[in-house]
Amino acid sequence: MEDLKKKILEEGSVLCGDILRVDGFLNHQIDVNLLTKCGLAWYEMFKNEGITKILTIESSGIAVACLTAQHFGVPVVYARKNKGTYIGDDLYRSKAVSYTHGKGYDVVVSKEYVNSHDRILIIDDLLSGASDLKALISITEQAGAIVVGAGVAVEKVFHGGGDRLRSLGYRVESLAKIASLDNGEIRFCED
Amino acid sequence: MEDLKKKILEEGSVLCGDILRVDGFLNHQIDVNLLTKCGLAWYEMFKNEGITKILTIESSGIAVACLTAQHFGVPVVYARKNKGTYIGDDLYRSKAVSYTHGKGYDVVVSKEYVNSHDRILIIDDLLSGASDLKALISITEQAGAIVVGAGVAVEKVFHGGGDRLRSLGYRVESLAKIASLDNGEIRFCED
Repeated sequence: MEDLKKKILEEGSVLCGDILRVDGFLNHQIDVNLLTKCGLAWYEMFKNEGITKILTIESSGIAVACLTAQHFGVPVVYARKNKGTYIGDDLYRSKAVSYTHGKGYDVVVSKEYVNSHDRILIIDDLLSGASDLKALISITEQAGAIVVGAGVAVEKVFHGGGDRLRSLGYRVESLAKIASLDNGEIRFCED
Repeated sequence: MEDLKKKILEEGSVLCGDILRVDGFLNHQIDVNLLTKCGLAWYEMFKNEGITKILTIESSGIAVACLTAQHFGVPVVYARKNKGTYIGDDLYRSKAVSYTHGKGYDVVVSKEYVNSHDRILIIDDLLSGASDLKALISITEQAGAIVVGAGVAVEKVFHGGGDRLRSLGYRVESLAKIASLDNGEIRFCED
């Protein structure tokens, strides 16, 4: 999506070789108008798929998931990292590893909020190795629900996580696909 | 707000004496339409106040903050609990304590995203002892910005946190004020 790519070029920066800093508009300060447009782009792709729920993971997926769910008129469910007090004990569970910190964590969703009648669109802000996406897919499938697809704002294609999911048959739609961050230069994949 | 109170009565439940479980619509599954209406209610209260940014704290404040910011046409900044890798080292810092878990944590915001020209509306999902709100007020004031007010979806008035802030001169606007949860019964304050 051109607006998102433009914003990444204008305000994104590269840290430590392959970390893309996008906290000015995506995951610390949030450009609500831009993420609403991202949501509309996914709505156009998935509007005929009978989506019943948007699934994401805390914290940085929540903003873009909510601003997408508005277009579909469906609820968001966000997975918790490790168990909070409020969500009970009857949980779907998976595991993921932070690309940035290298730490593993549990990913949990209450069984009350995803079920076998659901057609799920997974939404997240960033896709690197796809650890979070795989955990959300696992939880959806544990519930007997359908993974219709995944929408990701920024995919770092060179990590291979998105293409591994596509090779397993999942539909992954990224709005800005980054081919490389070599020498601090942000280079997008050719459309 | 009547829609929110109705939802709390229909779907909320009381745990462990004084914990209100609202994870079916507020902080695990999110009723996006309801929170959009909450945002509109605060917009009506604060629309003439020159709000430049909405400030909240991860994770459960992000949804309601984004769905409020849309009405104002301003960005959201969400404070991080403890420092993430992406947000740099030039940070405003405060501390808070989880009412539910009793654990303390750092609250941090990059100095890039709040400054002395800002007129801040703080938005959060729940207000008990006001530890998070106090941390967000501290950060706003460290930046030399103005705290125009705070909007909270559900205030547990019997914990006193909201009234302590009001007695200090802050404007705190809660959409559902809970007088007590005694014997598992949710009782609202009289309007």
